[in-house]
Amino acid sequence: MAVRKGRELLAMPHNIAILGASGYTGAELVRLVASHPSMRIAALGADRRAGLAMAEVFPHLRHLDLPVLAKIEEIDFSGIDLCFCALPHATSQTVIRNLPKTVRIVDLSADFRLRDPDAYRTWYGKRHEAAELQVEAVYGLTEFNRDRIRTARLVAGTGCNAAAGQFALRPLIRERVIDLDGIIVDLKAGASGAGRSLKEHLLFSELFENAQGYSLGGVHRHLGEFDQELSEIAGRPVRIMFTPHLIPATRGILVSAYVQGDPGAIHRCLSDAYADEVFALVLPFGRTPAMKDVRGSNFVHIGVVGDRIEGRATVIATLDNLTKGSSGQAVQNANLMLGEDETAGLMLAPVYP
Amino acid sequence: MAVRKGRELLAMPHNIAILGASGYTGAELVRLVASHPSMRIAALGADRRAGLAMAEVFPHLRHLDLPVLAKIEEIDFSGIDLCFCALPHATSQTVIRNLPKTVRIVDLSADFRLRDPDAYRTWYGKRHEAAELQVEAVYGLTEFNRDRIRTARLVAGTGCNAAAGQFALRPLIRERVIDLDGIIVDLKAGASGAGRSLKEHLLFSELFENAQGYSLGGVHRHLGEFDQELSEIAGRPVRIMFTPHLIPATRGILVSAYVQGDPGAIHRCLSDAYADEVFALVLPFGRTPAMKDVRGSNFVHIGVVGDRIEGRATVIATLDNLTKGSSGQAVQNANLMLGEDETAGLMLAPVYP
Amino acid sequence: MAVRKGRELLAMPHNIAILGASGYTGAELVRLVASHPSMRIAALGADRRAGLAMAEVFPHLRHLDLPVLAKIEEIDFSGIDLCFCALPHATSQTVIRNLPKTVRIVDLSADFRLRDPDAYRTWYGKRHEAAELQVEAVYGLTEFNRDRIRTARLVAGTGCNAAAGQFALRPLIRERVIDLDGIIVDLKAGASGAGRSLKEHLLFSELFENAQGYSLGGVHRHLGEFDQELSEIAGRPVRIMFTPHLIPATRGILVSAYVQGDPGAIHRCLSDAYADEVFALVLPFGRTPAMKDVRGSNFVHIGVVGDRIEGRATVIATLDNLTKGSSGQAVQNANLMLGEDETAGLMLAPVYP
Amino acid sequence: MAVRKGRELLAMPHNIAILGASGYTGAELVRLVASHPSMRIAALGADRRAGLAMAEVFPHLRHLDLPVLAKIEEIDFSGIDLCFCALPHATSQTVIRNLPKTVRIVDLSADFRLRDPDAYRTWYGKRHEAAELQVEAVYGLTEFNRDRIRTARLVAGTGCNAAAGQFALRPLIRERVIDLDGIIVDLKAGASGAGRSLKEHLLFSELFENAQGYSLGGVHRHLGEFDQELSEIAGRPVRIMFTPHLIPATRGILVSAYVQGDPGAIHRCLSDAYADEVFALVLPFGRTPAMKDVRGSNFVHIGVVGDRIEGRATVIATLDNLTKGSSGQAVQNANLMLGEDETAGLMLAPVYP
Repeated sequence: MAVRKGRELLAMPHNIAILGASGYTGAELVRLVASHPSMRIAALGADRRAGLAMAEVFPHLRHLDLPVLAKIEEIDFSGIDLCFCALPHATSQTVIRNLPKTVRIVDLSADFRLRDPDAYRTWYGKRHEAAELQVEAVYGLTEFNRDRIRTARLVAGTGCNAAAGQFALRPLIRERVIDLDGIIVDLKAGASGAGRSLKEHLLFSELFENAQGYSLGGVHRHLGEFDQELSEIAGRPVRIMFTPHLIPATRGILVSAYVQGDPGAIHRCLSDAYADEVFALVLPFGRTPAMKDVRGSNFVHIGVVGDRIEGRATVIATLDNLTKGSSGQAVQNANLMLGEDETAGLMLAPVYP
Repeated sequence: MAVRKGRELLAMPHNIAILGASGYTGAELVRLVASHPSMRIAALGADRRAGLAMAEVFPHLRHLDLPVLAKIEEIDFSGIDLCFCALPHATSQTVIRNLPKTVRIVDLSADFRLRDPDAYRTWYGKRHEAAELQVEAVYGLTEFNRDRIRTARLVAGTGCNAAAGQFALRPLIRERVIDLDGIIVDLKAGASGAGRSLKEHLLFSELFENAQGYSLGGVHRHLGEFDQELSEIAGRPVRIMFTPHLIPATRGILVSAYVQGDPGAIHRCLSDAYADEVFALVLPFGRTPAMKDVRGSNFVHIGVVGDRIEGRATVIATLDNLTKGSSGQAVQNANLMLGEDETAGLMLAPVYP
Repeated sequence: MAVRKGRELLAMPHNIAILGASGYTGAELVRLVASHPSMRIAALGADRRAGLAMAEVFPHLRHLDLPVLAKIEEIDFSGIDLCFCALPHATSQTVIRNLPKTVRIVDLSADFRLRDPDAYRTWYGKRHEAAELQVEAVYGLTEFNRDRIRTARLVAGTGCNAAAGQFALRPLIRERVIDLDGIIVDLKAGASGAGRSLKEHLLFSELFENAQGYSLGGVHRHLGEFDQELSEIAGRPVRIMFTPHLIPATRGILVSAYVQGDPGAIHRCLSDAYADEVFALVLPFGRTPAMKDVRGSNFVHIGVVGDRIEGRATVIATLDNLTKGSSGQAVQNANLMLGEDETAGLMLAPVYP
Repeated sequence: MAVRKGRELLAMPHNIAILGASGYTGAELVRLVASHPSMRIAALGADRRAGLAMAEVFPHLRHLDLPVLAKIEEIDFSGIDLCFCALPHATSQTVIRNLPKTVRIVDLSADFRLRDPDAYRTWYGKRHEAAELQVEAVYGLTEFNRDRIRTARLVAGTGCNAAAGQFALRPLIRERVIDLDGIIVDLKAGASGAGRSLKEHLLFSELFENAQGYSLGGVHRHLGEFDQELSEIAGRPVRIMFTPHLIPATRGILVSAYVQGDPGAIHRCLSDAYADEVFALVLPFGRTPAMKDVRGSNFVHIGVVGDRIEGRATVIATLDNLTKGSSGQAVQNANLMLGEDETAGLMLAPVYP
């Protein structure tokens, strides 16, 4: 049997554990970490599938030599440098509470995104089981939180929708180039954001040739993140109208943000904000990105168009929910936490068509 | 060879001509008219494909005995009762100008939607060649124009996007239950609305797993219709922000209209407006339709949701662009013009899944 | 509220019950029966969803006035003329055994397709609970069994894959124009054939952009039907190689049958066999149909191509698994059983694109 | 502006030119070469789009610093080490004839796949313009031709369908474990194999929810390759029956090969043949791969199933037509020609879901 590796690892790679490896974000982490120049997958956790080879759960990873899926309590964390937690919400907090304090953690669940225990209870309907960690966790939208992420022990990955919306809005709110009231975000998302869960509306026969809004009226949980982050930036409460739609695609989020402000100023503000960013690209004024432009990659593309109605503009941002919206972002954060180049293992070009 | 008809026609069916039969709206007209209880397809026009059997152009119509495709100038209109014109914009006006005055016409192009020659020039970039007919034409949004359609000689089918948006907005504007400024319409549309034209972005490999806005910033031509119709209803200029998005589906339009007003009043207003309509259904408050709920049918489904932000609501409306948005609407109008039951031939249930 | 019906029913329509209305074949039956000129839906059974309106389970049927979903034991069968049984395999036999003998039945499950109790046990892994009915049931491939279906009390709908394959093969075997050994059937099927069941491989994210064989090696249960029917026609055992593939589509089956024989003779044989059929169309020699040519309709299209290798040919047949492959076939059979025109309610043109 | 590179290039990378960069295989080459550890894109040729930035033609490559698209005659080949030619058939031969002899070439067109000028004329309908190069060219199915590829100046990339079929069949023919007559290959392919060309059947609205055979009856040009290669291996003429089908997917080919022989021996033969291969993986006996298992990667997965009919088996092989079927294969060959590790830049895991 030939060697299944096309690259030489560094002398001392970082040992990585991935919990929740049997879900889509888990599989995406394996894809990225497996070709990362200074990471090594040391353990894979997946309670329900424990004992199986990863190739049984995700045959597309058949070519990799990977650890067998294990129950979390069976994993030896003593040699682990960093642990990605891609577990379901609520499960994550109890697992992370029990991990050794020496392990650095990037959590991909919603459990540590909200700093305020009351906000957590409001949006998730239950008391947080690890409130002390909630305070410690750093919100993982890399481009806006680098310094704190570098030194954090626990980084909370953002919601994929919340990430997409914030890339469109954060610089505009910070610089006050748009009206803070009346922001409307209409979002189109592929099905993989809902994970591999067996739900009727996620069946192929249901979603194919279909499109529909969901969590309408301001009840989508990612609004907790929008409220927290946008209000903090603005220095006063900001509440947006946010409507996600499920469309017949697998990967990808396309945000259309309808805002009030000078379109030219909006474009300049975003261009300036992302001028030095590798992963966030702003298109020339009047051009907007398509969702497939970023598929399979860690890039976010952003465009601005002025409207025929004066003082109104549309900002369109797109990213791959499984990459820049979750697992790619997680690796980007891990790179910072481990002292690696922020882009290490993440410069993969989008897969098109 | 067995008889290819499963129904008995009335003693004296109406003779129907369909011009532009080689496009998608043309094929949809054939589908609907072929099973209509009191219509008979007497002529099919398709200049570029003249001489071909319809089954060469659309093999799914192989089971029907249909006239051979003919050049328009070869068609004998003397026995034709009603002519559907599914020709490209601009072509339509010159063809219709030359049709005998005895023939009633339902035009599916954009040529007679705008009553004002200047508005036509603004949105379509050229002078109208049949301005006298432009004045005569009746705007064909059936549910709002029945009486005038019944007696019209020329009915102008609406834009499919414009139809979807107006079903969501017209009653609200008429009854002044929403703020007339700041209406935002975000629309998701399948590819068939763009017709069978060979354009790169309509290729399967391009649109699959993709989504993108187009005609952004207030330049989509259907805004001409929105401006004309909504302003007339309001009795003062109304300009909406309108952003269509192409999604990876074939048929269907889903409109998300973001409006300001009391959500309960909005829902009551729409429920009242459509209470006696066969084809326009309003869902219970808080429920919204999915695009596939109407595929292949002449129905439009409408839902209203209140937002967590007081005084804001979302209206979601969906229809099949090829049926209720164009060819189904055309048959509905033709039924009125010919003195038939408005629903004749149109009660087909959606095809699901 | 306006009347939700676009047609006048006959003075005395047939009262129809549909059991298993909450599945895809059930919904398809409702679509077809609701616009049937001489049928009336009198009862809808769906045990798990009993008490719900059909529109809760299938919102696309929102426009119809339908009976509330009921438990089967709550349905009064005394006024029912014919009952469609779209229940899961094994359930069907126990339910049908207990129906009043006055009710005529079209069963869409696999329970009565095989006449031999041993064959049933072999393919379905258990003893049949209603062996006496198994003998009585008539195999419902309408075009080949009309006379027996007309007088049957119980008709067994065919497997959708088995139907598609038999349309390609039966006349060829009957007339001995192909070699009976070495027949290879490669089939491509959309996801709706697997029903609305929650299985991982049927998730949108799994099936999208995917394709795979399943039940390979001769274990697919529809082989029981192929063996029974083809052997009976041939008068000696015939066993084909049969490989179904799941492709990313919702509706539709495309069969590619690789056979040995004279291509011209094969084409003539099929053309002759279906010359008087309304629903089975044979294309000119050398032309083959596409799956979407029949979507949403009761048609089956068949084409024959000769190969560069002498004495070899490919027969391609396509039908919509939910219509001609199950629910449309069921209505066709019901028409015969009730003395109606065989094509009544079934002349709907395919929905394209 | 931040650096757009996440990796350090070697001191002296190989200078690469890509001709035909505006097509799908061209874009795929850019994706692969841009992250290759020892290659550098020095020139991009695309006659019709000359003068445009690559990001205008393929916005998903927006993040890369790439040469502007140039006319081929404007490219300075003096510093080019290797040239990928992704030009249309027939164009390729005239371009390559005029390239400096110092440049090594991997051609992705069909022009140099057939060694026999008469075979070329038969399958491509015209005389070859560079017959002397036809003789020199090495057939680029890497796993079977490594030694000759290493030293070749001109390597002819295989047809994507021909590659997929040969991975399933070559070892079986070489070892004579299957009957050489009666091999049937049924192939399902996504749309990207047809390139970015504007053809009606490649429109989204046409292909979506569709499936159909094409080039039926033994006229597909890749049969020229099958005939040449399989006959050479066998030492006597071998002609297979080969039927490709277009399915509604973008990337991917799934081959179902129906063969006669002992299933266990067939599986052993393939397992042995690929035991030392990095990119060709054979699954355990009785398991078969899905098309999406390899999407976006250079892997080919192969499975074998025995049939209930003795002495018959099905071999299923799948690869991504744009990667292992063309551009990935091309890079693999280039690695050999340039003395690099064969897997360099190609160990990307598939993108799933």
